[in-house]
Amino acid sequence: MAGGIGSRFWPMSRPDNPKQFIDILGVGRTLLQLTADRFGDEFAPDHTWIVTSANYQAIVREQLPSLPSDNILLEPCMRNTAPCIAYVIWKIRQRYPDAVVVVSPSDHFVVNTDEFRRIVSQGLDFVSGTSKVLTLGMTPTRPETGYGYIQGGEASEGGILTVKAFKEKPSHDVAIGYLAEGGYYWNSGIFLWEAKTAEAALRKFQPEVAAKIDEMAVDFYTEREAETVERVFPQCPSISIDYAVMEPLGGSDVELLGRKGGVCVLPANFGWSDLGTWGSLHNQLTKDADGNATAGSGNISFIESHDCIVRTSSGLDIVVQGLEGYIVAEDKGTLLICKKDQEQRIKQFSETLKNH
Amino acid sequence: MAGGIGSRFWPMSRPDNPKQFIDILGVGRTLLQLTADRFGDEFAPDHTWIVTSANYQAIVREQLPSLPSDNILLEPCMRNTAPCIAYVIWKIRQRYPDAVVVVSPSDHFVVNTDEFRRIVSQGLDFVSGTSKVLTLGMTPTRPETGYGYIQGGEASEGGILTVKAFKEKPSHDVAIGYLAEGGYYWNSGIFLWEAKTAEAALRKFQPEVAAKIDEMAVDFYTEREAETVERVFPQCPSISIDYAVMEPLGGSDVELLGRKGGVCVLPANFGWSDLGTWGSLHNQLTKDADGNATAGSGNISFIESHDCIVRTSSGLDIVVQGLEGYIVAEDKGTLLICKKDQEQRIKQFSETLKNH
Repeated sequence: MAGGIGSRFWPMSRPDNPKQFIDILGVGRTLLQLTADRFGDEFAPDHTWIVTSANYQAIVREQLPSLPSDNILLEPCMRNTAPCIAYVIWKIRQRYPDAVVVVSPSDHFVVNTDEFRRIVSQGLDFVSGTSKVLTLGMTPTRPETGYGYIQGGEASEGGILTVKAFKEKPSHDVAIGYLAEGGYYWNSGIFLWEAKTAEAALRKFQPEVAAKIDEMAVDFYTEREAETVERVFPQCPSISIDYAVMEPLGGSDVELLGRKGGVCVLPANFGWSDLGTWGSLHNQLTKDADGNATAGSGNISFIESHDCIVRTSSGLDIVVQGLEGYIVAEDKGTLLICKKDQEQRIKQFSETLKNH
Repeated sequence: MAGGIGSRFWPMSRPDNPKQFIDILGVGRTLLQLTADRFGDEFAPDHTWIVTSANYQAIVREQLPSLPSDNILLEPCMRNTAPCIAYVIWKIRQRYPDAVVVVSPSDHFVVNTDEFRRIVSQGLDFVSGTSKVLTLGMTPTRPETGYGYIQGGEASEGGILTVKAFKEKPSHDVAIGYLAEGGYYWNSGIFLWEAKTAEAALRKFQPEVAAKIDEMAVDFYTEREAETVERVFPQCPSISIDYAVMEPLGGSDVELLGRKGGVCVLPANFGWSDLGTWGSLHNQLTKDADGNATAGSGNISFIESHDCIVRTSSGLDIVVQGLEGYIVAEDKGTLLICKKDQEQRIKQFSETLKNH
């Protein structure tokens, strides 16, 4: 999934070049490329599918040149994750009826890619031949209020648990309670299922979405696909896969395809962040003794400064003196200096420039 | 005088392009050009003389293209202001024996140029036909500790006073005392005298400097001038015109050229700053309701910020949120963010960059 239009990493991310297409870590690869790299050993290029906005087709082609053009699916508009996933599942099913699918955002960060692949491999084995959905739950390391949580239930094989409940982003106090109680995991938004399970679940719980994708599917892999998708896809309701499928399926005893369904969670510990904000990027970066971090090029000097993150994409030389807890971010002629604890207002800040 | 190598406006000013050659106010003219403009109505180009470092010859020619090349004097090394002024006085005297001269730094700022010209015109009238030196004393508006002070004595014609004493840069408490007592003026470093008075005073109080300039003067306006100056000028002692001439002449009853000498001060009020630091530039700029100022190009947005100065020479768009009393200065790929009250450490800050 690579269709987001993040504004929280402004000025680096902008609607015409959102976060997933940016080398936000300053490592020479964009988040989309790092995500493709992470799956690359397990999944050949023609087994990798990207769903993105029609506006980003050229960027995806440029960043992932080995991907077959059939494998880039273009949404004419944003309809949240359920229609996005339905579109790609239907399309995969036409070519690979027995496929097992990992659904993943393209703009997350994983520290330990070997452990990530081990977990994914275990997950693929677990869901193969079943109607289970397996989500990857991150063992929480702090009472984070920016993530949804998954409450684990009964233990199953290999450390995998049934899902007792999905929890919305909690307050700080509630998050502290989750950590104290134990058995709660951050919802990474990464999950695995058979394509046929996915299709059956969507047909059962989201018949309106399924009907529209069926209408599109007669033209898949033909010259008419683009035109049909452009006409029909916008008629899908806008709904997230969590609301559409995970929650109704979560606690149920429902059978899908004559097999026992339900959602499980595999607790994992590969070092993960959704990189939702500059602050979460700061959490992931190596910091100096004063808690300052930089990413990318440029010669950065911190003097009497603490807990700052500095990022320049133009390779500026920067001296920062006397700042505590600030973001300093520069991209293509735009510079943001703001308090890290005000980062949720970055979109508002960007709009104060006359020509943002 | 345009030979300084300021480091306090880093990153805008650097040894290869110091403050006087920079459009520090962002008005489209450098300080040198603004200084030349200020005198332009009273002094024709061939009556304007620039003493600078040999390193800056090309910059001066480029910035003041109408200046005759004879009028650009090149110091092979820095010997403070007394040898600098002696050099140009001797040279002017050879061509214009009866010249009246205004000596001025080239990197100061004047708000009211009409009033400036009125004061200079009054001063020229006052010193003509006399052996007096007239300094311009700025009526102080705050207990500034960054300037030297001139204590006025007895009143003379047209508001002009005798000089009772020159005072070094005072402590804050002493400066408050000066303002409370009255009769003290900031020493602007701008002064007027006849060229023959200047020569006589230098011969009397600085015979060593005068001897070296005499040695050089036999080759003035010849092809040998550059070579001779390069050889002899460095032999001058390094001494300021204040110590060399003003102070010994100040309180004395000395006669020069058979005329009564002495230093006087003309109190003036044309809005002046030596632009010694980012803070003094901030004082001069128009500020918004929160005390924030910008100079130069770029689209600057201040949010929850006070008492800041932002200057970009590359036309960056900048959002500043949550800063109180900071300097944000960018020039040619280098960015400085520091507290305004730490600006005296800017040279030290610049040296923390690996390739400053």
